[in-house]
Amino acid sequence: MTSLKALVLVCTLKPSPAESSSVLLGQQVLDALGALEDHDVSGELVRVVDHQVRFGVSTDEGDGDEWPGIREKMLAADILVVATPIWMGQPSSVSKMVLERLDAELSETDDEGRMLTYGKVGVVAVVGNEDGAHHTSAEVFQALNDVGFTIPAAGVTYWVGEAMQGTDYLEHDETPEKTAETTKTVAANAAHLAALLKAAEYPA
Amino acid sequence: MTSLKALVLVCTLKPSPAESSSVLLGQQVLDALGALEDHDVSGELVRVVDHQVRFGVSTDEGDGDEWPGIREKMLAADILVVATPIWMGQPSSVSKMVLERLDAELSETDDEGRMLTYGKVGVVAVVGNEDGAHHTSAEVFQALNDVGFTIPAAGVTYWVGEAMQGTDYLEHDETPEKTAETTKTVAANAAHLAALLKAAEYPA
Amino acid sequence: MTSLKALVLVCTLKPSPAESSSVLLGQQVLDALGALEDHDVSGELVRVVDHQVRFGVSTDEGDGDEWPGIREKMLAADILVVATPIWMGQPSSVSKMVLERLDAELSETDDEGRMLTYGKVGVVAVVGNEDGAHHTSAEVFQALNDVGFTIPAAGVTYWVGEAMQGTDYLEHDETPEKTAETTKTVAANAAHLAALLKAAEYPA
Amino acid sequence: MTSLKALVLVCTLKPSPAESSSVLLGQQVLDALGALEDHDVSGELVRVVDHQVRFGVSTDEGDGDEWPGIREKMLAADILVVATPIWMGQPSSVSKMVLERLDAELSETDDEGRMLTYGKVGVVAVVGNEDGAHHTSAEVFQALNDVGFTIPAAGVTYWVGEAMQGTDYLEHDETPEKTAETTKTVAANAAHLAALLKAAEYPA
Repeated sequence: MTSLKALVLVCTLKPSPAESSSVLLGQQVLDALGALEDHDVSGELVRVVDHQVRFGVSTDEGDGDEWPGIREKMLAADILVVATPIWMGQPSSVSKMVLERLDAELSETDDEGRMLTYGKVGVVAVVGNEDGAHHTSAEVFQALNDVGFTIPAAGVTYWVGEAMQGTDYLEHDETPEKTAETTKTVAANAAHLAALLKAAEYPA
Repeated sequence: MTSLKALVLVCTLKPSPAESSSVLLGQQVLDALGALEDHDVSGELVRVVDHQVRFGVSTDEGDGDEWPGIREKMLAADILVVATPIWMGQPSSVSKMVLERLDAELSETDDEGRMLTYGKVGVVAVVGNEDGAHHTSAEVFQALNDVGFTIPAAGVTYWVGEAMQGTDYLEHDETPEKTAETTKTVAANAAHLAALLKAAEYPA
Repeated sequence: MTSLKALVLVCTLKPSPAESSSVLLGQQVLDALGALEDHDVSGELVRVVDHQVRFGVSTDEGDGDEWPGIREKMLAADILVVATPIWMGQPSSVSKMVLERLDAELSETDDEGRMLTYGKVGVVAVVGNEDGAHHTSAEVFQALNDVGFTIPAAGVTYWVGEAMQGTDYLEHDETPEKTAETTKTVAANAAHLAALLKAAEYPA
Repeated sequence: MTSLKALVLVCTLKPSPAESSSVLLGQQVLDALGALEDHDVSGELVRVVDHQVRFGVSTDEGDGDEWPGIREKMLAADILVVATPIWMGQPSSVSKMVLERLDAELSETDDEGRMLTYGKVGVVAVVGNEDGAHHTSAEVFQALNDVGFTIPAAGVTYWVGEAMQGTDYLEHDETPEKTAETTKTVAANAAHLAALLKAAEYPA
């Protein structure tokens, strides 16, 4: 039984205390990780727009930039969950801002030349009124992978409604069943893979 | 009142006589074009996999290639409709094969150096059980635009169901209302733009 | 000879006075529009991060939001140029923020039910060290089209270098020839189409 | 030292014996896997268009379909490499056809409900004259991940040239250095991860 840390970065456009479907789905992934019996996963959820994160591609943009604090949490985590709403069929601008900040990790390596993100697992939680989950996961998978994250089998959970409809995920009385199942699978696979990589890191 | 020709290329994976949601939606776009009062649009629907179209990026791949016949229809048309199913959140392989064949048009120009596709309007019809319409339209828009097509305002009609559900578009007793409305808008905008471009071509 | 207005929204991550390749390419599109002989195009370039634009999907997010001022310029323009850098093979977070703000236009219609963006032409200018221009244009085309913009034939100009290289566009002594030619074509096609749509708007 | 099997599916549009840059890069990945000191990797390269693979989303489309034979190789492999050219900034139609055939694996599960692809590692090799590698990898990563593959850190190697240039990868006298390095990293990471997952499969 491995002790693992998870960090959920929620990339909603709306600061607290507004209700948010991506906060809800991100929290459900965190809960599913915490409920696993084979692993001891603790974690934290950060709503990015509640912090002063600057646009940029460095680890610290100065000028009151609060990314460095979030980055510390990311570096301490074994599992990173990017939870994002869909806008116009695409990942949110806030998720892009987060991925651009992670781009700085390409230049941050350990003594053996590995990126500090190597060995960390990345998964995605996507939610929108309608349409865009697969593409959003494609964009986030590719960007996370470019900066060193490993993507477990079935690395995304999502919900969207029928074409051009308007009900939000958080308006459901009960979590849609298939999304709930998928969330559990994502959590189980992410933790399994993170435990393996923690015990046996990538070659230098 | 301008006379216009439309060609619908349906990119389902299944040959006739199998039922196909993308044939249905493609036909609905063609019907909506024919029903316009401001323009006289005649047209035709081609189900690409019923023909021996070869993989490639030339206008004629030889070896019994049936693309040249389809290409003649495309060159005669003012409006091209690419109707495609979604698989894995993405446009079908058949639609990609069609777009790759259109890539040959980059080298086919008129006496004044314009591509033969210049002045033609391209629109998209997308259908799947769930998720992927926006991204599919993005892929097709970009590829059509690269080879000279103009994309009218609101250049896509689509239907998808809720996340991970299995009902097909063609199983509906009635066309979902928002899709039906959108189909009409796409037709009206495509014909309006095609008539303008037919009367006033792009500069050489 | 039609009088037309163009607005270039540059979506670099870096505020002034930092040098920016996307400012340069955006300015080149504006210059090419201004140099056209068939049309009288005046225009303006806005570097979005120099303004306090808020995340959101409404026309005015309050709290000092400077989008409303930019939106006024957009509504007055016939041609919108989105100029964006590539990060991780994808459009910048700032361009996504801009597109999300444009999403509000779906609810803003004239007396006849048309979006206020109908009749406007949208084009894209993309620049990066390497790889990502086609995809970036696909994302921006689809989002602009969803909110009512028309995309002219060959609606994008771009530059990228060889895989994994590091020279910036602005470091070139001379504008790469193919990019320079493409920029002229984009300008000519955008103005031609904008003039047509200004004279004959889409049906209600 | 784990014995591992790799399968490279090359998705060029051109049948043998035409020269192909994606065959070359796919072979280089295979060679890099074979040269690893920590693992004993044997493998095979299949040029998909040399076989009669049918469009479809089942494991066997009948009618002389040669996918079942390729599928056997895929099921026997621990590492799947999808090597594809870029056309129009996007993955090839042949790669889409392959991914659609893999979509059938969603319904193929072992006694404990796991897909037969679970535990296999998927990586990507992409090559084009210019632009499109990141997006191509995004599309392929997402599709492979949807059907059960795990993506190792830095799971793609690629080469593209400067914008709008025409030299092919296979025309280089020497392999571009950064691509060569990246190919080695992809191979090392893929084998490391495949060995871990072979020894410790995902939970049921």
